[in-house]
Amino acid sequence: MKGRSALDAYSNGKAWWTTAISDIKKNQITIRGYPIEELIGELSYSQMLYLLLCGEVISRRKADLLESVLVAGADHGPRAPSIAAARMAATCGISFNSCVATGMNMLGDVHGGAVEDAMKLFYQTKEWRDEHQSTIQTAVEEQFTLLHRQKIKLPGFGHQLHDDDPRVKRLYQLAQELVEEGEISGIYLSIAQEFRRKLKEAKNKPITMNIDGVSAAIQCELGIPAEAAKGIFALSRGMGIVAHAFEELMNGVLIKGPCPDQDNLVQYNGASLRHLVKGGETDECKSGTVY
Amino acid sequence: MKGRSALDAYSNGKAWWTTAISDIKKNQITIRGYPIEELIGELSYSQMLYLLLCGEVISRRKADLLESVLVAGADHGPRAPSIAAARMAATCGISFNSCVATGMNMLGDVHGGAVEDAMKLFYQTKEWRDEHQSTIQTAVEEQFTLLHRQKIKLPGFGHQLHDDDPRVKRLYQLAQELVEEGEISGIYLSIAQEFRRKLKEAKNKPITMNIDGVSAAIQCELGIPAEAAKGIFALSRGMGIVAHAFEELMNGVLIKGPCPDQDNLVQYNGASLRHLVKGGETDECKSGTVY
Amino acid sequence: MKGRSALDAYSNGKAWWTTAISDIKKNQITIRGYPIEELIGELSYSQMLYLLLCGEVISRRKADLLESVLVAGADHGPRAPSIAAARMAATCGISFNSCVATGMNMLGDVHGGAVEDAMKLFYQTKEWRDEHQSTIQTAVEEQFTLLHRQKIKLPGFGHQLHDDDPRVKRLYQLAQELVEEGEISGIYLSIAQEFRRKLKEAKNKPITMNIDGVSAAIQCELGIPAEAAKGIFALSRGMGIVAHAFEELMNGVLIKGPCPDQDNLVQYNGASLRHLVKGGETDECKSGTVY
Amino acid sequence: MKGRSALDAYSNGKAWWTTAISDIKKNQITIRGYPIEELIGELSYSQMLYLLLCGEVISRRKADLLESVLVAGADHGPRAPSIAAARMAATCGISFNSCVATGMNMLGDVHGGAVEDAMKLFYQTKEWRDEHQSTIQTAVEEQFTLLHRQKIKLPGFGHQLHDDDPRVKRLYQLAQELVEEGEISGIYLSIAQEFRRKLKEAKNKPITMNIDGVSAAIQCELGIPAEAAKGIFALSRGMGIVAHAFEELMNGVLIKGPCPDQDNLVQYNGASLRHLVKGGETDECKSGTVY
Repeated sequence: MKGRSALDAYSNGKAWWTTAISDIKKNQITIRGYPIEELIGELSYSQMLYLLLCGEVISRRKADLLESVLVAGADHGPRAPSIAAARMAATCGISFNSCVATGMNMLGDVHGGAVEDAMKLFYQTKEWRDEHQSTIQTAVEEQFTLLHRQKIKLPGFGHQLHDDDPRVKRLYQLAQELVEEGEISGIYLSIAQEFRRKLKEAKNKPITMNIDGVSAAIQCELGIPAEAAKGIFALSRGMGIVAHAFEELMNGVLIKGPCPDQDNLVQYNGASLRHLVKGGETDECKSGTVY
Repeated sequence: MKGRSALDAYSNGKAWWTTAISDIKKNQITIRGYPIEELIGELSYSQMLYLLLCGEVISRRKADLLESVLVAGADHGPRAPSIAAARMAATCGISFNSCVATGMNMLGDVHGGAVEDAMKLFYQTKEWRDEHQSTIQTAVEEQFTLLHRQKIKLPGFGHQLHDDDPRVKRLYQLAQELVEEGEISGIYLSIAQEFRRKLKEAKNKPITMNIDGVSAAIQCELGIPAEAAKGIFALSRGMGIVAHAFEELMNGVLIKGPCPDQDNLVQYNGASLRHLVKGGETDECKSGTVY
Repeated sequence: MKGRSALDAYSNGKAWWTTAISDIKKNQITIRGYPIEELIGELSYSQMLYLLLCGEVISRRKADLLESVLVAGADHGPRAPSIAAARMAATCGISFNSCVATGMNMLGDVHGGAVEDAMKLFYQTKEWRDEHQSTIQTAVEEQFTLLHRQKIKLPGFGHQLHDDDPRVKRLYQLAQELVEEGEISGIYLSIAQEFRRKLKEAKNKPITMNIDGVSAAIQCELGIPAEAAKGIFALSRGMGIVAHAFEELMNGVLIKGPCPDQDNLVQYNGASLRHLVKGGETDECKSGTVY
Repeated sequence: MKGRSALDAYSNGKAWWTTAISDIKKNQITIRGYPIEELIGELSYSQMLYLLLCGEVISRRKADLLESVLVAGADHGPRAPSIAAARMAATCGISFNSCVATGMNMLGDVHGGAVEDAMKLFYQTKEWRDEHQSTIQTAVEEQFTLLHRQKIKLPGFGHQLHDDDPRVKRLYQLAQELVEEGEISGIYLSIAQEFRRKLKEAKNKPITMNIDGVSAAIQCELGIPAEAAKGIFALSRGMGIVAHAFEELMNGVLIKGPCPDQDNLVQYNGASLRHLVKGGETDECKSGTVY
């Protein structure tokens, strides 16, 4: 974690809170310079999100593509940890928004997090190609070998359940339409496809691009920073989290744990029954070195 | 808090997790019965949210009105607790989604929570009118008096900063267009206006409807349950939370507290310097009764 | 929710952040007036918590009783929503502290929340007795009837699993020792027992006091405000949350949902397969009134 | 992020939830094999935490040292992001435990996170010494050079406010007492001191060990795994978070942002006032490469 302490950064008399996003005054709210009342009714959700995040208004066509990504990731049922945690929270008597926050806390490096990694990879691949005035094939080959050498799993491919995910095909098709219209360049879609081809070749079996992979390629096409991916996914899966938490809230069931009370589901595999030797200490933590 | 324990509810052999929202199978994802690939590219964010939450697809016109509500509430600058908490989190080395969750945890009964209360009030007012085959005026009068007697503040009116909020006027105007088109009935907008008129009369000074009030009236027009309001607002303000946390993340500043180190901002007003009397207990908590 | 806006409260030139808890200066940290270095090594966890929360140092004997309450509530296995959510979070790639926060978010009105309600009830009962110069029996009878009339469940009694909870008996016994030593008065323990007796009489069957009930009585004896109960329980169950999240973290398993993939555990009971009528809206949300 | 998917891990018919921590049956709760009623009243908070986390009971002397670490880190006033976020949450109408969770979400890699890094460093240093049958001096020199070459900041030294932190001296002194008693070996305290000496030499000016550094050395002495550090700190700072959130809750002030409404504290530095060109897109996100 690089960075300066906030105290140092502001020791020179700068304002403590500076922002280029919004300016709030009495009866006047501007977002990235635009009066809010001129945006309401004009911008779609995705346009507003892009404006807040990136500072500019993108075309409705591009925004619709981003909106498709948000729609595609909205839900994956109550067995997803994010959805389950939010539903469990809804049975514990906390504020609805806190149930939603509980679900969102889950969407880290693992649960949806591959989008960020895939975006970084795709951006790096394009950068390498541009620097070396090379082809996509060579650039992908280069990055592929690099990952392989570092034993890093290629992000954005394969799924534990789906091997022909209906969301992926549809998103890819929508993106292609925008390439044909000249709205986006298609370079990152090509890079992603080339990675899939390369992976298939290496594994000698067909591998599917997953929802993270295609979402990453599309978000690269739209110029969204890789580091923003987890926040964007939070607003996508957020829809499902809201709906599922609400369904559970309306059930009115209390203190719902993860599964019913069945011995085959929950199992204790620790120490047998024992008793304290008064004041007596037992062995120390076995993990006296780096775990 | 009413409700049955989860164990009781499922003791009759029902599935532990039941949902009417989505069905996830290998290569097949249906949302409220629709194959997901038929929704991607067709539904806007608001349509998808409504489908997930309420089970049906609303017209694009209605969805656009809901989207306007989401856009209107997206940001209120870094002095809003939700935004500030997310920005502070971004300086503390946690996952971006956890920064977003931190901000959303704030959006409870007080911070945006008036929408739910206003929706309940508007729904109750209409119900009373229908039951008593009365006029809006009489129904509002009745509810107004009831709140006054219970010393409950009328939700959805007045703002600590704005007295002519540009968002309110614009949302109201957009909603009126849909009334004229026959897309929505306008009854809840009328009820909200009548409450404003009544409040103005009672206070003998002009009072503005606030963003919570107009958002509540619109969501009632769309048939959204009052209890869903906090979740919907989480996805609206969520956009601002994502953007602000991201801005702070990119700053690279570490451990940013709420304000700079100035004596006039942070003040200790507790006990003077003292020392432990060894083993000695001092007075007990003064709050020995209900606080 | 009563209260003034922060802006109003501080409009008179007061500091924005005032606290009586701690004073932090360069190389000088005082807690409730005590230099921190005089507390370290002298105060137990419970004494420090009490000092921070209530402002004073309680005797080691009293603190030990509070510590017993913290120890007793520390864990209830992975089927508790708090524990399960933290474990699930640990498989999703977020910061360990954020896993802990996810678990704590669960400990609301329902999951451990009865302690607060029971404390309020016990404090009110004593107050009524004092005001009316009455007996415990009469005061309990009065409150019992009041709750019954309002159809409010008596908090602190009964458990969905245990009917002879080993924690309760042990805590009660420890508390009695302090009554005999004159450290605490015993009045709230008597009130709690009388409620149990009364409930047994009313239900005509034995009812156990639960862990929430005895914890509430003890915390009343120590003069802790009822509204602090959820925070204290967070630090008690927090131990279990930390340990369970850590165990799961060390497992190295990824994206662990609530239960395995078995049809009898997860069931879809929503709309049958259907298709969008292009542009066509379907029925509206059925919940057009207060849900 | 390494690891197997939960589905794979449990495909062989194992229980979904396995734990060695606790076994919960009707009227029977065992923690690491001990009946809970034998622990209540016998174990201190730190002993219980250690038992839950590491599986064994440590001596009261060692547990008291851990308790001193917990007490030392309990609070650092309302300018710490963790404390401020919890206080702000308390003004927004969410459950008290959710306020606490909000504060804990902050305690990531940066805010208190150096303990984990320092513990890893100290464990690695000892391991290197053992493997190479070397001296502490040589082992520290080796690791120091390694960090320097990788441009990684030495964790556990220096503080933005304190240069003679009263907590550090006191903790060090308490730990030394246990070394003299033979309860702990003192090896990690020596390693930490050697790092401080080395750093002073390299910077040619005195550098203080900070609270993270001494806490890390002590937790290494107790055999606690480095990866557990963030969870333990959450329960330490948790005391301050609970107390501060409670103080703010009792204030009854609503929607308290980070700072008062002063132009010098909050500053907008973004785009000047502008207007939408209808349907017209503006420039794209400038961050089209990896941010």
